[in-house]
Amino acid sequence: MKHDFLDWTLTEAAQALRRRDVTPSQLVEASLERIAAHDPLLKSFITVFEQQALKVGAASGALLDAGHDLGPLHGIPVALKDNIAVAHTRTTAGSRVLADWHPAEDAAIVTKLRQAGAILIGKTNMHEFAWGGTSANPHYGFVRNPWDTSRFPAGSSGGSAVAVAARFCFGAIGTDTGGSIRLPSAVNGTVGIRPTYGRVSNRGIVPLAWSMDTAGPMTRTVEDCATLFGVIAGFDRADAGSAAQPCGDYLQTLADGIRHLRIGVIPSYFFHHLQPAVHGAVQQALDTLRELGAAVVDVPIDGIEDNISAQLTIEAAEPSAWHQRHLRERPQDYGDDVRTLLEVGELLLATHYIQAQRYRAVLRAAFIEAFHKVDVFICPTLPFTATRVGETRVVIEDGVEEDMLSAIMQFTGIASLTGLPALNVPCGFDDEGLPVGMQIIGRPFDEATLFRVGHAFQQATAFHRRAPELIESRAA
Amino acid sequence: MKHDFLDWTLTEAAQALRRRDVTPSQLVEASLERIAAHDPLLKSFITVFEQQALKVGAASGALLDAGHDLGPLHGIPVALKDNIAVAHTRTTAGSRVLADWHPAEDAAIVTKLRQAGAILIGKTNMHEFAWGGTSANPHYGFVRNPWDTSRFPAGSSGGSAVAVAARFCFGAIGTDTGGSIRLPSAVNGTVGIRPTYGRVSNRGIVPLAWSMDTAGPMTRTVEDCATLFGVIAGFDRADAGSAAQPCGDYLQTLADGIRHLRIGVIPSYFFHHLQPAVHGAVQQALDTLRELGAAVVDVPIDGIEDNISAQLTIEAAEPSAWHQRHLRERPQDYGDDVRTLLEVGELLLATHYIQAQRYRAVLRAAFIEAFHKVDVFICPTLPFTATRVGETRVVIEDGVEEDMLSAIMQFTGIASLTGLPALNVPCGFDDEGLPVGMQIIGRPFDEATLFRVGHAFQQATAFHRRAPELIESRAA
Repeated sequence: MKHDFLDWTLTEAAQALRRRDVTPSQLVEASLERIAAHDPLLKSFITVFEQQALKVGAASGALLDAGHDLGPLHGIPVALKDNIAVAHTRTTAGSRVLADWHPAEDAAIVTKLRQAGAILIGKTNMHEFAWGGTSANPHYGFVRNPWDTSRFPAGSSGGSAVAVAARFCFGAIGTDTGGSIRLPSAVNGTVGIRPTYGRVSNRGIVPLAWSMDTAGPMTRTVEDCATLFGVIAGFDRADAGSAAQPCGDYLQTLADGIRHLRIGVIPSYFFHHLQPAVHGAVQQALDTLRELGAAVVDVPIDGIEDNISAQLTIEAAEPSAWHQRHLRERPQDYGDDVRTLLEVGELLLATHYIQAQRYRAVLRAAFIEAFHKVDVFICPTLPFTATRVGETRVVIEDGVEEDMLSAIMQFTGIASLTGLPALNVPCGFDDEGLPVGMQIIGRPFDEATLFRVGHAFQQATAFHRRAPELIESRAA
Repeated sequence: MKHDFLDWTLTEAAQALRRRDVTPSQLVEASLERIAAHDPLLKSFITVFEQQALKVGAASGALLDAGHDLGPLHGIPVALKDNIAVAHTRTTAGSRVLADWHPAEDAAIVTKLRQAGAILIGKTNMHEFAWGGTSANPHYGFVRNPWDTSRFPAGSSGGSAVAVAARFCFGAIGTDTGGSIRLPSAVNGTVGIRPTYGRVSNRGIVPLAWSMDTAGPMTRTVEDCATLFGVIAGFDRADAGSAAQPCGDYLQTLADGIRHLRIGVIPSYFFHHLQPAVHGAVQQALDTLRELGAAVVDVPIDGIEDNISAQLTIEAAEPSAWHQRHLRERPQDYGDDVRTLLEVGELLLATHYIQAQRYRAVLRAAFIEAFHKVDVFICPTLPFTATRVGETRVVIEDGVEEDMLSAIMQFTGIASLTGLPALNVPCGFDDEGLPVGMQIIGRPFDEATLFRVGHAFQQATAFHRRAPELIESRAA
């Protein structure tokens, strides 16, 4: 059975390739076969690199046979969110505005992935221009959650999360401005990291809100995530936001455990307005981490509740500036929801934007100060599990409906505003079998600690081993 | 004659102190006497530290006698613009809003000045909150240009420039957001540097537009400027905008000359809309620099003409955010012109502000690229010489009146937007004996080269030796 290959984690597949238990071609074939069988319903890909991936797979196998090993991703099928440039290949950013854009050059991280041996299997579906929290893509189809295809996959990197959760590939790259890696990772039961701002180059990635934009890996395990992250992290002189800060070895301390680790929580903000299943799963996860030797400490952060309005302001204003020309020249090529959001962004005053930026500095300083007392913060990634496709409202408690866009950002905006790294790790399921994720927020450039905590948790639990049962949806 | 001491440059006074030709007390007395005689008309000071300066002078002399030399500024009277905090001392920023503000701590650079032995002689008058290009201060009196007291001293560091030009002290600290050190330096015939953004700490300085705010020294000679600059430059962990970049020794290369130096000019932008006297003086200065061994090279910068609108946008929006609360609570404490500017800033859209910030990145990249071909750029500091006090319009060519605020920023906005360092050096006089200044713009953190060029020019010319004749205006 070819499909069994895809039950391996990325790490296991890499080992199997070295043992010659499988060839890159076999992995590519398995991946393409599974996409063909199930993606007509899930719609996680906008473009699949069928012929090209097969050719690269064959060549990749020949290289391995010749003893020419490109490194940790050699022969591994990986997907890219469709706002990441691949040279001479359509890169839509999920919009009709860029439907015919064929960038001349690879994004910086695509070069790194190629050099580390990855096989690009395709470009994943996404919220249009990575904007909008609630609706699915009007141009390239509604992505569906593999755990329940009547549910939404969240976004904007919904396609990348689904491609990983559905085991179409061993890892995918997403982008995260306000939560776009972490949210779909949580509702689809995958691991995903938003890096420290500046840790991963954004060169060649269509911007959303550049003072918060990041790119990061999405995988099934924390170990896989650390492996992919080690490949794409690093300084890029040609990206003005890139940090000239050395990278660690993200695998070296992975298995060091979490004895004496101090975990910060803010009970009044992190645990006061959640679906009960989310509340229970994250509290249970904290208990597990305590059993592994960590201490859980209450650390208040003044003014943290203002983060949502600050984030919405920045995430509304910056894209509106970038899109101004397209919005004048071809408004009809935008979906209604994103066009509306961009038009709302144009109404914001400079003082609104600047006050939001000032708030960021204060919030960041409060977290930096708090990191004297704790090593990481842990909270739910979002307050609810996957809602139905197309919903713009959500019920969190007591039958009260809320606007989803604000509600969904309740916990992810913190890292987006402060520039801190944050990792989603699956930590349970609700009564309907929908995944719950927890978010681990760390010090600037201390992704290694996030991986260490997440890995310890996954070693002690089995949530990441469960997989959704897919429904064959191949075109006749 | 006590007053003769003040004809010394800072460097000469420092040498005289070490030779025991003069004591710190004598310098302080000369300074206070001269201020008392002439500042009632010139109004360059808001606060004079009379008693305190005398005490510090005496103690400073005792230290020197004991062989305890604090360094380059030991015993030297220096003035501070009144937006720079001095602990437990009124710091008004030129406004009635802060008329009763007595900061608890010294600004970071004040600590550095004290430690290097400077004697703080007083706080200088300024445009209210350093904002507004055309009008004088409605709360603390109109500063007057010592070369012609019917003329304006420009701003916002007009008081600091006048205090230096009138030889009330050996140096002063100003602040420069859009040109506030360079403009008054030019129209009062003093040397003044806007440092690279982040080179000098802004901690303890009332902000205007924090993405462009800088502080720097104003003196009679470039050598004095380099000396003062060496004292105040450096990283400050507590200032988020401060650069963790090592400082050079700004005096070491001062006398190295400019043989083979490449000077960039942009004829179409730098020399096309100037008063004839300004045009002539700067062209003459370029000839002098050529004679000293430099090459003058035409280097176009695409889109440079948009710098004024970008600068006005940022300089309008950022202060409006900072002042929002004061403006609501005590609008009557602002002068009409500054209140109007702040209210205009509140009308700007977030997209206006963000587009201006995007333009900055492009302009900066163009200059960084151009610095492969040249070592510095030289242009006039402003297109005209001092206008009459109270004027808001200026005639540059052909009898056409223009709005002064835009016209005055024509050349200074470039360094403000790009974060590059820029030095004003006096380079001539117009027919009415009013000073003309040229601006030398350099690479990031390469202030040393600016000082080297300016010093070579001053060694070859004598403009900095001319002093205005002051009119006694002592109160009866």
